Amino acid sequence: MEEVTAAGEAFALLRERMSELADLEAISGLLDWDQETMMPARGARARAEHVATVERLHHERLTAPEVGVWLDSLNGDALDDAAAMRAEPADPADRDHALLRVTRRDRGKALRVPRELHAELARARSTGQHVWAKARSADDFEAFLPQLRLLIDLTRRYVDCFPDAEHPYDPLLDDYEPGMRTAQVVELFARLREGLGPLVAEIARARDEGRAPEALDGPFSTDDQRRLVRRMLVDVGFDPLAGRLDESEHPFSTTTALGDQRITARFGEHSLEAMFAGLHEFGHALYDSQVDAALEHTPLCTGVSSALHESQSRLWENMVGRSRAGAEYLLPLLREEVGGVFAAMDADELYRRVNVVRPSLIRVEADEVNYALHIILRFELELELFEGTLQAEDLAGAWRERASSYLGIDVPDDAHGVLQDIHWAFGGFGYFPTYALGNLIAAMLWARIRADLPDIDARVATAEFGPLREWLREHVHRFGRMLTPAQTLRRATGSEIAVEPFLDYLWEKHAGVHGVHRGGASRA
Amino acid sequence: MEEVTAAGEAFALLRERMSELADLEAISGLLDWDQETMMPARGARARAEHVATVERLHHERLTAPEVGVWLDSLNGDALDDAAAMRAEPADPADRDHALLRVTRRDRGKALRVPRELHAELARARSTGQHVWAKARSADDFEAFLPQLRLLIDLTRRYVDCFPDAEHPYDPLLDDYEPGMRTAQVVELFARLREGLGPLVAEIARARDEGRAPEALDGPFSTDDQRRLVRRMLVDVGFDPLAGRLDESEHPFSTTTALGDQRITARFGEHSLEAMFAGLHEFGHALYDSQVDAALEHTPLCTGVSSALHESQSRLWENMVGRSRAGAEYLLPLLREEVGGVFAAMDADELYRRVNVVRPSLIRVEADEVNYALHIILRFELELELFEGTLQAEDLAGAWRERASSYLGIDVPDDAHGVLQDIHWAFGGFGYFPTYALGNLIAAMLWARIRADLPDIDARVATAEFGPLREWLREHVHRFGRMLTPAQTLRRATGSEIAVEPFLDYLWEKHAGVHGVHRGGASRA
Repeated sequence: MEEVTAAGEAFALLRERMSELADLEAISGLLDWDQETMMPARGARARAEHVATVERLHHERLTAPEVGVWLDSLNGDALDDAAAMRAEPADPADRDHALLRVTRRDRGKALRVPRELHAELARARSTGQHVWAKARSADDFEAFLPQLRLLIDLTRRYVDCFPDAEHPYDPLLDDYEPGMRTAQVVELFARLREGLGPLVAEIARARDEGRAPEALDGPFSTDDQRRLVRRMLVDVGFDPLAGRLDESEHPFSTTTALGDQRITARFGEHSLEAMFAGLHEFGHALYDSQVDAALEHTPLCTGVSSALHESQSRLWENMVGRSRAGAEYLLPLLREEVGGVFAAMDADELYRRVNVVRPSLIRVEADEVNYALHIILRFELELELFEGTLQAEDLAGAWRERASSYLGIDVPDDAHGVLQDIHWAFGGFGYFPTYALGNLIAAMLWARIRADLPDIDARVATAEFGPLREWLREHVHRFGRMLTPAQTLRRATGSEIAVEPFLDYLWEKHAGVHGVHRGGASRA
Repeated sequence: MEEVTAAGEAFALLRERMSELADLEAISGLLDWDQETMMPARGARARAEHVATVERLHHERLTAPEVGVWLDSLNGDALDDAAAMRAEPADPADRDHALLRVTRRDRGKALRVPRELHAELARARSTGQHVWAKARSADDFEAFLPQLRLLIDLTRRYVDCFPDAEHPYDPLLDDYEPGMRTAQVVELFARLREGLGPLVAEIARARDEGRAPEALDGPFSTDDQRRLVRRMLVDVGFDPLAGRLDESEHPFSTTTALGDQRITARFGEHSLEAMFAGLHEFGHALYDSQVDAALEHTPLCTGVSSALHESQSRLWENMVGRSRAGAEYLLPLLREEVGGVFAAMDADELYRRVNVVRPSLIRVEADEVNYALHIILRFELELELFEGTLQAEDLAGAWRERASSYLGIDVPDDAHGVLQDIHWAFGGFGYFPTYALGNLIAAMLWARIRADLPDIDARVATAEFGPLREWLREHVHRFGRMLTPAQTLRRATGSEIAVEPFLDYLWEKHAGVHGVHRGGASRA
């Protein structure tokens, strides 16, 4: 009896501490959001201090000795796979299991890293973004190099804190994709590259033979697009009482609570990117808004991994927005809000023109096919950096070589090459592969959704998005971090992560868009 | 030598902790600002948790035992008055003196209050605002009464934590106006009431005799006012790279850093209140933006008290905005941005019409003369509550009686009476008097400014606000919390807080506006 009470008390204290940490994470998110959308320029220096203070407090309160005492006094292993397939957010015992698991995991990783290294990394990440932004606008890799070298060195020291890792890249990957191993990604990406080869070749042939559609490249009034995106967000189910849309230099999504989802957009005249980016960010926000309310105010109330999160954004952007049914849904909006070229366009043409495949320099502008190649390029460079076979000073050159061989494209300058992404500037090594993994997962979920909701195309075409939202809530979103990423995927699809559904999805789409078929039997 | 090092280390640790607390205060401010301006409605519940967590961490980190150990190992008394008159923010020793003083003060007060009472008060304050808002819209004092009673009871328990206070109201007043005593306010307000009596009577006579101007009551297009306020803020020196203007239900000002001042406005068709409120909030923001940069990232980098802060907002709103020179400055803006009635108006008429004196039900709409009476009414009720001679259930009735006798006005319902202000709903007992004290201080500063800058009227009339900003920076703003409020005032004016400069200011103004003179020799 006494033991039960002591354990009960330890659990109460643990829950309270973890709620506090969830609050600090939400506050961090809000500080970032504000910085990107609202903060006046001269607030930047102080803001860096505010962010660092919240991060330091988070680290201190997570690694504090009393948390170890509570954890030691509590039994409860991670849910095994069979139990995970039955776990429910409404069940307090399942929740407690999950809370113990993620606390032990997060605390275990945090304890490995000396306080000084943690602080040095935080400073280098903060400085890195400024240095990078200046270097990129000046197209000056050399100006970024010292900071990049520092970030790589510090990250190598971070990796050294995990001497039992199978591969030096594992601890980095695991920060974004808990439980995923480098070896698994290497294998998946090898199959992906192999599978994409023939598709890229077939599409290139179609282009050469004049069977490829023309990209839509505007100009489209940004005010028209603003109205269109707001209407679209209402249609798909973005609740203005529980979220906001603002503008920022790079679109992103932030959650501070189930009832507070904030997404941003950037409107440009030369493409419809803002529309697809709006669906993308909505996908992120929907995930964060549909976690079960029983998990609110705990560290379980968030998406389970970067790849699962990206699968949600990609599903709405590509499987919904860039589908044939999506074109039917979007066309009337484009006619009414943008007009011009769309007045005489039919849904078939819109569908084909938003699915043009063409090698491009910039990852964030890449089509669905080439996107994966952009990621594989970055992943391989990161691997070599942490295996020690590539040094910072050789990155720009290695980038050019690989862009030429993988994308068939000449990189004219570093601003459009190695300097194009912010990720390395904030020390986000290990992040890139999760983008491509997200695409794989999106295709797996979409195959399952089409089986479970046979009329999904008709629903999308007529702006009935409720059943899709509900499927995602029931099978993915509501679990938050209760299950591991692999368990979450298995519960939703019955499978482990795989390449084939994504390749099937692309071949099917480009049969329609480019008239290509597996085995090269292109139809005219 | 060893002692010096130990003290040096203790000071370094203390400075670090106090910077952390300054960060938490800035973050609190941002959470509030976001809640009032940006947050979607459904984010409210979680936001209350975030705010409570930051407040709890602040309390815990301020009252932590190690802070006591550091403080005990450090010598350094508060600056005596002579030293305070020479103290400079650039001098590290002066800064350290001040840091020790405010830390000992803030920590001493926090330690007196048991953790549970602190938490109960925080909860009751958070709930109180919701209950009050509903009760006010329903004009239902009884609906607010249980929560009000709870807040008063908890605040009485808070007062009981300071058994050595001269007066039970002292600990409350001291939260907003450090060092100020109830007895001093009682005496000041007695003189103020006495001094205002003849002025109110003379103005009433002028009104009865048809010598009073007509109020300006619109309608004025809110879009026109938005443009006007933005232009005006640029003129007075509100830097858009270091601040923002947004809209909220009640105008307010928040600072999160020297370079990040945020003010809000509410635009209504029926008055020019937004214009004067814009000057008011600018006054607050300017104070917070002109604290010496050497004090940044410490708890010294903020206004020194509520009354000093209010003196800054009132100075810009009334001494600048509602002056004869202010009318000359504002008239061209009103002509260009609002037009209509202003096309044919001269500066004399504008001056008189923005200075109408008329008893009114609502404090925030009161003129400069009646405003003080509104405050005295609230202060006296608060005194009686904490002296124990008035109970919560008798407040609504007491309010009506006093409004009738002090303001000569019948209160038609509690929404326009006892329920009009939010302060009691957030447990802000002790706050009201600082508004009137702020008016007294503004008049003292203004008298000094007129002596130091003899051409100030000509400057204001021609939109040259730089010298005024610079005077305020040099004599008030730059010290932040380095000096006590009383020392700050003495350094700027050479005097203790007094009533006479405010009465002089009002008599002089209403000689021009209403043709009244001390002693009742009204001119026709």
